[in-house]
Amino acid sequence: MSMTMSEKILAKASNNKEVEAGDIIMANIDTAMTHDLTGPLAIQSFEQINTDKIWDPEKLVVLFDHQVPADTLDAAKNHQIVREFVEQQGIKNFYDVYEGVCHQILPEKGHVLPGTVVVGSDSHTCAHGALGAFSTGIGSTDMAMVFATGQLWFKVPETIQYNITGNLQENVTSKDVVLSIIGQVGQDGATYKACEYAGSTVENMNMSQRMAMSNMAIEMGGKTGLVAPDKVTDAYLKERTDKPYTKFTTDKDASSLEIMDIDVSELEPQVACPHHVDNVKPASEVEDVELDQVFIGSCTNGRLEDLEQAARVLKGNKVKEGVRLLVIPASRTIYKQAVDEGLFDIFLDAGAIICNPCCGPCLGGHIGLIGDGEVSLSTSNRNFKGRQGSPEGKVYLSSPIVAAESAITGHITAPEKK
Amino acid sequence: MSMTMSEKILAKASNNKEVEAGDIIMANIDTAMTHDLTGPLAIQSFEQINTDKIWDPEKLVVLFDHQVPADTLDAAKNHQIVREFVEQQGIKNFYDVYEGVCHQILPEKGHVLPGTVVVGSDSHTCAHGALGAFSTGIGSTDMAMVFATGQLWFKVPETIQYNITGNLQENVTSKDVVLSIIGQVGQDGATYKACEYAGSTVENMNMSQRMAMSNMAIEMGGKTGLVAPDKVTDAYLKERTDKPYTKFTTDKDASSLEIMDIDVSELEPQVACPHHVDNVKPASEVEDVELDQVFIGSCTNGRLEDLEQAARVLKGNKVKEGVRLLVIPASRTIYKQAVDEGLFDIFLDAGAIICNPCCGPCLGGHIGLIGDGEVSLSTSNRNFKGRQGSPEGKVYLSSPIVAAESAITGHITAPEKK
Repeated sequence: MSMTMSEKILAKASNNKEVEAGDIIMANIDTAMTHDLTGPLAIQSFEQINTDKIWDPEKLVVLFDHQVPADTLDAAKNHQIVREFVEQQGIKNFYDVYEGVCHQILPEKGHVLPGTVVVGSDSHTCAHGALGAFSTGIGSTDMAMVFATGQLWFKVPETIQYNITGNLQENVTSKDVVLSIIGQVGQDGATYKACEYAGSTVENMNMSQRMAMSNMAIEMGGKTGLVAPDKVTDAYLKERTDKPYTKFTTDKDASSLEIMDIDVSELEPQVACPHHVDNVKPASEVEDVELDQVFIGSCTNGRLEDLEQAARVLKGNKVKEGVRLLVIPASRTIYKQAVDEGLFDIFLDAGAIICNPCCGPCLGGHIGLIGDGEVSLSTSNRNFKGRQGSPEGKVYLSSPIVAAESAITGHITAPEKK
Repeated sequence: MSMTMSEKILAKASNNKEVEAGDIIMANIDTAMTHDLTGPLAIQSFEQINTDKIWDPEKLVVLFDHQVPADTLDAAKNHQIVREFVEQQGIKNFYDVYEGVCHQILPEKGHVLPGTVVVGSDSHTCAHGALGAFSTGIGSTDMAMVFATGQLWFKVPETIQYNITGNLQENVTSKDVVLSIIGQVGQDGATYKACEYAGSTVENMNMSQRMAMSNMAIEMGGKTGLVAPDKVTDAYLKERTDKPYTKFTTDKDASSLEIMDIDVSELEPQVACPHHVDNVKPASEVEDVELDQVFIGSCTNGRLEDLEQAARVLKGNKVKEGVRLLVIPASRTIYKQAVDEGLFDIFLDAGAIICNPCCGPCLGGHIGLIGDGEVSLSTSNRNFKGRQGSPEGKVYLSSPIVAAESAITGHITAPEKK
C-alpha cells in the first residue's frame, strides 16, 4: 500500500505493516523529552501510576531551558524536583541549566533520528520533523504514560505536503516561507495534519533553515512538520551520532496525501502581526511599526546560521537608541561558535545584550518581558496576546535578517532589494 | 585644623572651612545614582514634592542592573516608570538594561571623582570610596530630596583607618583582606564610621582590588569605604574623564581618627559562612562544604581582573558535575574585554554559564536563585538568610580564586600554597 512518511513511521513504531490516516495505533516511543516547565507536572502524574521506574532511561532526554538559571523560587524548586527524578531514574541524557533550548539540544546532541517517533512535553516538538522523525508535542499527563509504558496512542494523521519551489530572493529565508504558508492556510489550516515541507526550495535548505519551518508547523495546527531525510540530513547526523536510521519518504500516490504547490520565487520578507501567527503581511507593508525590543533567538531562529545572518546586517551598525536588542544563542555550542567566529564582537559593538542560552523572551516568563504598550519584534514562533509579557504589549514575528535590520532603524524594516 | 579625608570632603561639600565628626552638615551632592529597583520609589516620592524638575540632570546617573532584561511584568513596569522619568527630566547619563552593574558603571564611565560626594539608592554605594569620594548608600525617600534639592544632610562620621601592611601571598586577594577585617571587627564594628583602607598593601593594589574592599565597608556598618587617591587613581581616571578633581588625604593627627594596624602577610584565603558576613573562616577550614552553585560576578568581584583570576584557575579544568558555575561580568565593557581576551572560551570549555551583565544571583530576585537546602559560593558581598533565593539555602562568600577552585572540586577549596 502507498503510504505517507508519517504513516510509514507510525506503522514501524506500532509494529504494523501498514497503517492509514484515521487509524488509532499504539506507537513505541523512540525518544521522549521533557523540560523544567512541564517536567514537574509529568513527574507528579507519573508518581500516581503504580510504577517505580520509567520504561527506559536511555530514551528520555531531560533538560532545563525555560527558566535558566532559576529566576524565581518556584523555578529553583522545579529544577530540584526534576534533578531528583533524573537521579532516581538514572537518566543520563540530562542537561542542566547550562546547555540550551530543548528543540536545539535534541538534534544537536544526536537524540533525533529519521524514521523514529519523538514526543516532547512542549508544543514546538514538531521541530524535529526536520530530520524526518515523526515528532510532536504532548501534554504532561500523556508524558507520564510515556514514562510508565514507553508507548502512546495516536490517530494516524493525514498529510499535507507543501511542495515549495523557486529560488528564494536574497534576504528571504525559510522563516519567511513558513510565515507565508501559515498566513495562507491560517492557524487551523493544517489541524492534526502531518505538515510536510518538500520541493526543490526545501531540498536546497540547510538543516537550520528546515528546523525553523518544522518548528512552526504547530502554528497552523500541524501534528508534526516533516522534511524527507536526504544528504543534508545525513551530513547533519554524521557529526552527531553513529546510530543507524531509516529514511522514509512519502509515496506520491498515498491516499491520505494532499499536495499544495507553493512558488516562493517572488516571496518578500514576511512579518506575523499581533496577535495571531497567521496575521502575516510583507515586512514592507508594516514599516511604520515602532519597536521597543528586538529578540533574535529561540528554538525557531537561534541557531548559528541565524546569528550569522543577523551579524552580517548589524556589522558596523548601531542599534537604534531606545531599542533593546536581545541576542540569545539557542545552545551553549552555538554560543561558543558565535564567540569564536567573532559574532559577539559584532553584536556587542552594535549595542546588543547577549544572554545565556535559554528560551528568553519567547515564553514571556523569564528574560526580556515587555511592558504595557511596548512592541517587540521577535524571531520566535508565537505572538499571542501577552506571549512576551504584558497583554497590553504587541509581538511581531520575523526572520533574523528583518529583526536585525529593524533593530538598527527602530521600526520594522524590510531589507533593501539588491 | 587637622581633618580626616571624609571631613575634608564634607567640609568642601558643605561650603565650610572645617567640619568635625559629629557635626550635622548639609552637603551638596556631586553625583547621585539610582537604579531599576529603588528608582521607582524615589520617583514616586519625588512626585509628592512640589517641584517639577530635578536639581541638575547632569548630576544624576540612572541605570538598570537588578532585573535586566526584565524578568517579570513588575520589572518591565519599573523600567518603564524610570525611562519616562529619564525622558521627562532630560537625564543624559542613563544606561538602560544593557550596560551593567551600577557600582561598576559609575566609576567605569567617569561619574566618580576624588573629593566629591556621591550618593546612590543602593547600600553598596560605599564602593566608590575606592576613588577617594565620600560615597554612600541612601534610601529612596532621601534620594527624592536629592532629586529636588541636590543636597542631603549628613552627620560627619568618625574615621577608622585600617592600616594594612604586608605582602599578600599568592592566591590571596583584597576580598580576603576585607572579609578578614569584617570577621575581626564584626558586622557592627564600624557602624556609621568612614572606613579608610590605607597602608602599603592597599597602595600596591589596583583599582579593581580596591573597589572590592570599599564595596564591603557597609558589611561592617561603615558609612563609606575610602582609599586615598594616588597614582593608581589618577591612571584609572585618566582613561575615563578629563574633569578636574581634588585629592584629599587624612591628617594623621585628626582628632576623630582611629587607626587599626593589620598585617596581612600571613593571611589565608577567607570565606564568610552563613548567614552573616562577619562569620569568617579560613577557606581551608570549611573545605567539607559541598556546593550546588558558584557565582563569579557582582559589583564586588565581577571586574576583568576578577574574571582573569578565575580563568587562570579554570583553564583546562571542568566544573564538577552537579555544580552550576555562573559567570556574570559586571559591565558590558568587561564582558567584551573578556570575550576579546579569550576568557569566554575558558569559561565555556570548563562548563560555566555566562549571563548578560547584571547583579545576577547576588540579590536573589532575578537570575540564579538557589532552592531549599542548596548551597552557593559567591563572590558577591552578602550572605544573609535567603539572600540568593530560598531561606532554606546557604550562601558562602569568597574571592574569585576560591570560587573557581571550588567550582572544579564541588566543595569549598582553598587554593594550594605554592
